[in-house]
Amino acid sequence: MNCEIVAVGTELLLGPSVDTNSAWIGERLAENGIASHFHTAVGDNPARIVDVLRIALSRSDAVIVTGGLGPTSDDVTREAIAEVMGVELNLDAKLEAELRAIFAARNREMSPSNLRQAMRPDEAVAISATRGTAPGLICPVGEKVVYALPGVPAEMKEMMQRAVLTDLRRRSGETQAIVSRFLKTWGVPESVLGEMVAPRVQALESSGNLTIAFLAHGIDGIHIRITARAQSHDEAVALLDDEESQLRQLLGQLVFAVDHQTLESVVGNLLSAHRMTLALAESVTGGLIAARLTGVPGAGDWFKGGVVSYATEVKQSVLKVPDGPVVTVSAAQAMAQGARNLLAADVGVGITGVAGPTEQENQPVGTVFVAIDTSDSVETLELHLSGDRQRIRETACITVLDALRKKLQERPLLEH
Amino acid sequence: MNCEIVAVGTELLLGPSVDTNSAWIGERLAENGIASHFHTAVGDNPARIVDVLRIALSRSDAVIVTGGLGPTSDDVTREAIAEVMGVELNLDAKLEAELRAIFAARNREMSPSNLRQAMRPDEAVAISATRGTAPGLICPVGEKVVYALPGVPAEMKEMMQRAVLTDLRRRSGETQAIVSRFLKTWGVPESVLGEMVAPRVQALESSGNLTIAFLAHGIDGIHIRITARAQSHDEAVALLDDEESQLRQLLGQLVFAVDHQTLESVVGNLLSAHRMTLALAESVTGGLIAARLTGVPGAGDWFKGGVVSYATEVKQSVLKVPDGPVVTVSAAQAMAQGARNLLAADVGVGITGVAGPTEQENQPVGTVFVAIDTSDSVETLELHLSGDRQRIRETACITVLDALRKKLQERPLLEH
Repeated sequence: MNCEIVAVGTELLLGPSVDTNSAWIGERLAENGIASHFHTAVGDNPARIVDVLRIALSRSDAVIVTGGLGPTSDDVTREAIAEVMGVELNLDAKLEAELRAIFAARNREMSPSNLRQAMRPDEAVAISATRGTAPGLICPVGEKVVYALPGVPAEMKEMMQRAVLTDLRRRSGETQAIVSRFLKTWGVPESVLGEMVAPRVQALESSGNLTIAFLAHGIDGIHIRITARAQSHDEAVALLDDEESQLRQLLGQLVFAVDHQTLESVVGNLLSAHRMTLALAESVTGGLIAARLTGVPGAGDWFKGGVVSYATEVKQSVLKVPDGPVVTVSAAQAMAQGARNLLAADVGVGITGVAGPTEQENQPVGTVFVAIDTSDSVETLELHLSGDRQRIRETACITVLDALRKKLQERPLLEH
Repeated sequence: MNCEIVAVGTELLLGPSVDTNSAWIGERLAENGIASHFHTAVGDNPARIVDVLRIALSRSDAVIVTGGLGPTSDDVTREAIAEVMGVELNLDAKLEAELRAIFAARNREMSPSNLRQAMRPDEAVAISATRGTAPGLICPVGEKVVYALPGVPAEMKEMMQRAVLTDLRRRSGETQAIVSRFLKTWGVPESVLGEMVAPRVQALESSGNLTIAFLAHGIDGIHIRITARAQSHDEAVALLDDEESQLRQLLGQLVFAVDHQTLESVVGNLLSAHRMTLALAESVTGGLIAARLTGVPGAGDWFKGGVVSYATEVKQSVLKVPDGPVVTVSAAQAMAQGARNLLAADVGVGITGVAGPTEQENQPVGTVFVAIDTSDSVETLELHLSGDRQRIRETACITVLDALRKKLQERPLLEH
């Protein structure tokens, strides 16, 4: 079974719009054991969409088309699919009723052009719209199939999960449950990670029901995807649990989060577990760390706030950093302590350094000093980061959050 | 003349890697008046790459291929192109010498596999590598042409600008200079912007040497691209200058930046021009505004720093916000004044609000109060933003920066 992806929309060809839908769909297909060999983007042109669909159907068992299902005259995916199927496109009374109900519920006038969204190629099965107004379509073409989904990512993803993957799995004859889990790592390159988990990759080679893959996420680290196949969902989850614990024995503290967890949500959970609050003093990162932490819902329970002490005199007057050089480990320590005192927090973190473009206090670009002050102990780091200004700031941000995570994980939990 | 784009790399099909190269190339082609009707992504499979190239050459005059030019055995773009050209792939002595010079200059050992990057299909012309190690290729196929470029964005972009666009323009017989300029706007939707500039769009319909296009950049606003064609670069720039001033008369303060300027760099330039410094007090945006401002090189000249006053007691103890509710316009005013005083800055900005997921002090999610305090005057804003937590925070961030820009632009410049 293989399935290719076609993204429709002239805006995808002309920039700056980037087709993120196809990568997301490709990832879901891979997780479900379905091969995908080609992605194509094509403009809102009926003849070209027809050509692209015919090429796709000549070499793949299934095609997922995103976009071109809107209400305007340049939304022509429905027409193109009907032509490829060799059937007529007709108004579907049930889809029309659903569409009118959506507009009525939103107290919005429905214009006649919106009725285009209730058109269905004969023999196609509709996927009801639950988030937007455009229904999806499942369109048989001989033994093969074309799925049409809206281009709006949230609508596309919901229909993909609800209807398309199920139908694809049924067609592929796949009866096993396939479940994936992601272990997110930070701190070592993919080659080192590969060597560390090599014993498990070798052990699994003959197993057939568990696979491991590495996915590089840039500044979000390298994610290890474990995929399990079993007779039931529960059995697959049990396989994942066992494999996760085997991998964690090899990887130790390199794993910072699982699945939908983020580094900042993990830090927040650890602070909550310790019943500790955090304050920051950021210079080189300039608010990046605070911005990530406050992105976590409920951050107010464990995050007091921070001082972006960009100017030297702010470090001195607000955080009580002594006179003298400020790109030093002792300045980072004074900043951490100053933030902890000023904001009355349990943990203070100070970050000072040089993001460039020019050196500062004779310290080269990329030099960063960090202090984590938990009042009973102070840990310091000296980093030498490479890349441009943005890269140095972002790498410092994730490195500081990861160091804080490790320090909190090592700390014994108090009995409450 | 039309040119399609092929991105090579199995990682593009499996997620999470998103093909950003093709959108960037598509934008450059559009600016240069070259049509692009199809983008295709294909894995590192020689037979499939050959098929995709043959389909592309059957319907387009030129093809730009990115990726698959690395030194490892799964980098097979060179082999696939040679097959499509019907020629042999041979080691090029000049490319080998260039490659050895690159490794020598970096004091790195060159492994035998690296020699793959010095292979050139007979009849193809190499584009020297100036950033990485992989040379690009210009490969004639009958009257048509395939360009092969590295997948690393910085390497690809440099070769595209240096070699490919020039060659494409020569082949297309285009002798005119084509130059684009981007006016970046924030604050009104695309439909309203379209109505505002309709007189210019109509006036240009018969001109032939100037075009206007709208590009939606999400949280970075809507950009208006003006493209001019003329006998010389200088003449094209003169046309752009004239059109920009005509559009600015219609758009007024909606234009926040031009070309590579960002909203935060414009704010920084305005603060420098006024010889003023800035301090922030961020609650709901939690450091996002500080992080954007400190991303500007040289921000230390005009940015003192900020307080991320997430906890209510931090607003009170550090910024001297009076006891009582903190999601109010008067709290925003007190925060702005507190930041200005504490950090000894000329301008203070305070932002407080509710990002969700739950309401606070009976204020619904999306309520945001802003104060901009320049000591001689205080401006306040009350925003009601929609979307999820991230969307509300990001929209608040850009709205505050834009309000600060307008206030600084309206302020008369002092003689120095």
